[in-house]
Amino acid sequence: MLQAPLLLTPGPLTTSLATRTAMLKDWGSWDGDFNALTASVCADLLAIANGGDSHCCIPLQGSGTFAVEAAIGTLLPRDGHMLVLANGAYGERMAKIVSTMGRKVSVLRWPDGTPVDPIAVRSALSSDDSISHVGVIHCETATGLLNPLDAIAQAVAAQGRALIVDAMSSFGALDIDLQRQPIAAVIAASGKCLEGVPGMGFVIAQRAAIALAKGNSNSLALDLADQYDYLQRTGQWRFTPPTHVVAALRAALDQYLAEGGRPVRLARYQANAEVLITRLQAAGLRLFLQPELQAPIIMTFYAPAHPDYRFATFYQAMRERGFLLYPGKLTEVETFRVGCIGAIESAALEQAAHAIVDVLNQHGWL
Amino acid sequence: MLQAPLLLTPGPLTTSLATRTAMLKDWGSWDGDFNALTASVCADLLAIANGGDSHCCIPLQGSGTFAVEAAIGTLLPRDGHMLVLANGAYGERMAKIVSTMGRKVSVLRWPDGTPVDPIAVRSALSSDDSISHVGVIHCETATGLLNPLDAIAQAVAAQGRALIVDAMSSFGALDIDLQRQPIAAVIAASGKCLEGVPGMGFVIAQRAAIALAKGNSNSLALDLADQYDYLQRTGQWRFTPPTHVVAALRAALDQYLAEGGRPVRLARYQANAEVLITRLQAAGLRLFLQPELQAPIIMTFYAPAHPDYRFATFYQAMRERGFLLYPGKLTEVETFRVGCIGAIESAALEQAAHAIVDVLNQHGWL
Ligand SMILES: Cc1ncc(COP(=O)(O)O)c(C=O)c1O
Ligand SMILES: Cc1ncc(COP(=O)(O)O)c(C=O)c1O
Repeated sequence: MLQAPLLLTPGPLTTSLATRTAMLKDWGSWDGDFNALTASVCADLLAIANGGDSHCCIPLQGSGTFAVEAAIGTLLPRDGHMLVLANGAYGERMAKIVSTMGRKVSVLRWPDGTPVDPIAVRSALSSDDSISHVGVIHCETATGLLNPLDAIAQAVAAQGRALIVDAMSSFGALDIDLQRQPIAAVIAASGKCLEGVPGMGFVIAQRAAIALAKGNSNSLALDLADQYDYLQRTGQWRFTPPTHVVAALRAALDQYLAEGGRPVRLARYQANAEVLITRLQAAGLRLFLQPELQAPIIMTFYAPAHPDYRFATFYQAMRERGFLLYPGKLTEVETFRVGCIGAIESAALEQAAHAIVDVLNQHGWL
Repeated sequence: MLQAPLLLTPGPLTTSLATRTAMLKDWGSWDGDFNALTASVCADLLAIANGGDSHCCIPLQGSGTFAVEAAIGTLLPRDGHMLVLANGAYGERMAKIVSTMGRKVSVLRWPDGTPVDPIAVRSALSSDDSISHVGVIHCETATGLLNPLDAIAQAVAAQGRALIVDAMSSFGALDIDLQRQPIAAVIAASGKCLEGVPGMGFVIAQRAAIALAKGNSNSLALDLADQYDYLQRTGQWRFTPPTHVVAALRAALDQYLAEGGRPVRLARYQANAEVLITRLQAAGLRLFLQPELQAPIIMTFYAPAHPDYRFATFYQAMRERGFLLYPGKLTEVETFRVGCIGAIESAALEQAAHAIVDVLNQHGWL
């Protein structure tokens, strides 16, 4: 393997050289130049979600999960009650975050591969007035399923509750429009569809909700109201920011905008996904999801039924050919996943599909 | 200013080009190569503190504060009681972390610039059996003061309590020896004396304490017992690691070891500090601390007494000359700070001192 392997994973992913070389400079975290960098990154992130004046962007150190926990811990009052809509591992994780922080949580579950049903959400809300907040995963990365965000947002708003959306693996590629969709907070991170490097998350939150959230958080590090207050007063992050990661995200956003923004990014991912799905289905592999539920982010395939199939062996053989795959995340059925996001084009997915089929054939697993 | 400014700050700091170029590669977070990277970084961090078999190294995403909060939230039982020894802003922050998470905290305070007194610690502990844990800042970065860790650790151990040490700005340069000093956990981060880039912290914790800590944490993201359990079982971080930051820390550790490890790093910082202090004192500037209390990490100087002196103006003039200074962090007196850590040598501090004197003279402030 002469080149670094391509990451066909849902983040960290393959970034462009321009994004990585943006990390060759050191930044002072107290300096005006760095404050300007933070401000421009936040402004662009807000604009991507059409946050306008109603919302604000709050960056946070750490991985995406830290931002999810921070959003919930900041927005959900201590005596609040959150209903989590779960159809996969990230929904379950969100529920665990709420219960670990000792706040009230209920879970409405669907099987892996079944989308959240907005009608069921509406009736759950109408039968329990104590539910103040609803949490949902936009693209459930455990399967690759796209939940019907528009209809969910309408159902939650119709019942007068606040919606928190984990858009980790969709933000920047799939449609989120905060002027159209009633959403209290959208959470994502640097190293997903924006194609930055991992190391920071961010929350696009309703200004009015943040203003009311003072004192909710049981955590100093994860208190977004405090982080936002400090950012507004000083232009700075409260604690040492991951300066190089922020600079890389700035470079990645420059490329995102130069490429044509969200529609063009989405079209590239759709082309990537289509090549991969078409080639692998032609070779007899089966997609886990119904096609209309599949987001063009990460694809789950059933593992070959052959009794000798081992993911670890498959992974290593693919690795030798220069591609890193992702294991399945379903407990009931054996699957593997292939991501199609990152600074890669459909030719790479074509090669990856070819390699997958070749490796499986060589082992006699197809 | 033709070059990027030198950061005379306590992190983020100036890193070497070798450290920054280590970020030019993308890593899969599920890949064996990355697991090996994590394992080697953790092994080296543990060895620097002479952690042996008694302790383990647990890395954590985010800034240093996240690791402080994680260490406390994981090790302090929900019905525990922590005594924080505070003589500066970071001690106060530690106390705030404990109270924000809703656990019992008491604070023993000394004025800025006065070291923690181990005899007072001993008597505070002997008069309150409910105190289970003691927290202290090794080098209080707000002033630059080095607290007497050996004597504090002995006092705490003699009373049978557990000591948690925030060694953020000292780890890797100042002496910490876990086989000699009875310490439950030492906390530090990538972007300080190890000269990596910011974006991850780590906790060197007693294995026995971590084994008993399951279920203490009110936070999923900041649960170090869970993080360590997952790391041991899979070789992986629980949530997406800041891959490029970890790779940079690996490169920085390689340079640290090649340079000669802790004694040589300390000697370089001592030489840096000495040049700076000598030059600035010769020009009539006064060091805030008594010399014997000063750690060779960051120096606090009284601001010139001139009524027209403004830190912002001073900062900008120094910036134009290629040096980023740090503001004071004391509420009672006007000060400024100059850090001497990072990939810089005494010649740089010599130039910085010269520039400081020159700028202050030009403004007529000396
Ligand atoms: C939908 C979703 N939520 C949360 C996360 C967690 O993010 P992280 O691993 O950065 O903590 C991920 C990661 O892939 C995700 O896809
Ligand atoms: C002693 C000490 N503790 C904690 C911190 C907080 O670290 P961070 O800013 O990375 O959160 C610092 C930062 O300089 C520090 O010097």
